[in-house]
Amino acid sequence: MPEYQLYCFAQSGNSYKVALMLSFVGADWAPIFVDFFGNRDTRSQPYRADVNEMGEAPVLVHKARKLSQSGAILAYLAQRSGQLGGRDEIERYEIQRWILFDNHRFTAHLATHRFLTVFAKAGDPAVIGFLRGRVKSAFAIVENHLTATEFTVGSTATIVDISMCGYLFYPAHELWFDLAAEYPAISAWLGRIKALPRRAHPHDLMPGHPLADA
Amino acid sequence: MPEYQLYCFAQSGNSYKVALMLSFVGADWAPIFVDFFGNRDTRSQPYRADVNEMGEAPVLVHKARKLSQSGAILAYLAQRSGQLGGRDEIERYEIQRWILFDNHRFTAHLATHRFLTVFAKAGDPAVIGFLRGRVKSAFAIVENHLTATEFTVGSTATIVDISMCGYLFYPAHELWFDLAAEYPAISAWLGRIKALPRRAHPHDLMPGHPLADA
Repeated sequence: MPEYQLYCFAQSGNSYKVALMLSFVGADWAPIFVDFFGNRDTRSQPYRADVNEMGEAPVLVHKARKLSQSGAILAYLAQRSGQLGGRDEIERYEIQRWILFDNHRFTAHLATHRFLTVFAKAGDPAVIGFLRGRVKSAFAIVENHLTATEFTVGSTATIVDISMCGYLFYPAHELWFDLAAEYPAISAWLGRIKALPRRAHPHDLMPGHPLADA
Repeated sequence: MPEYQLYCFAQSGNSYKVALMLSFVGADWAPIFVDFFGNRDTRSQPYRADVNEMGEAPVLVHKARKLSQSGAILAYLAQRSGQLGGRDEIERYEIQRWILFDNHRFTAHLATHRFLTVFAKAGDPAVIGFLRGRVKSAFAIVENHLTATEFTVGSTATIVDISMCGYLFYPAHELWFDLAAEYPAISAWLGRIKALPRRAHPHDLMPGHPLADA
């Protein structure tokens, strides 16, 4: 059995964050398919009871432990591997605060918007508009930050870059704006991540449900 | 000058998280009033340039450093004080994952709902309904979790309890549901936090703007 197992599915950007980290550090791992669009919803009672009371993917299985929340798993893997976790205490603090920002502002609204518009194909226009406003506000902060730095914290990639890119390698048509034109610094940073050794697309790291690709 | 200074205001539940931690550990600190409802909005350019590029409170000043994101500041203060940070690596991991959950699900939607309904007195009914659904989903997870445990992680209070209670000591009429009736485990847990030595109300720890109390 591989050292790590990851409950995940290809369309989950939060799962991708962990899968990409496992790829970057060269971990021995295998995915466990979560059939989010089929009959094993993460919000179902059996999943909550057996895998994650928070009703979410990803969940990393390591030895007897089940770990959830991508931001916490990334820190766990950085510490175990000695890679991508920042060079000193100040960098680790900066990484932590940007991971929190990613979780409650940058990823949060983009992922919810994507779920509603791409998969559920539902959502009141007022809600969609509200989420778009929140996405733009978060993107403006990150665009401004990345204008002055190659990676989010320091001059090399860390787990916070892995966290923040989680939803940005999916098809461009899922966004309602032109990322390259409106956010050149974010686009250039994404290009730098894409060029890193062992970077792979979400669909090449995790199994997906064919219906979700329609 | 006190050892710590905290950019904050009484109505900010995220600021309260840090103010309460400073109180619990007996720190030497003083507030710096952020006039969120007056002429010094955290989203203004001077605030972003001088205090926090993320445009948010709280910000903790310690020596030459300015620290933001309540979840990261709480971990920083736990480490420095040796208090409320969990007893071992497993507890610290659990604290981290629940702080992430608090930031992107539990506090996040409640704070946005409160801002729109209590202060801005704006927001499309569809958006308010959307946020209420997200709040209830997060509260159900926490209610279920606290049914089996005295505090969120382990048998004593830690920084994750401080994080999660941030918006729950404001007036009950700000909520649209009866917390004690619908969430008895959350209410009992709040009672345990309220009984801790040096617990104080947000308005007794931080300065506020009189207009916001109307």
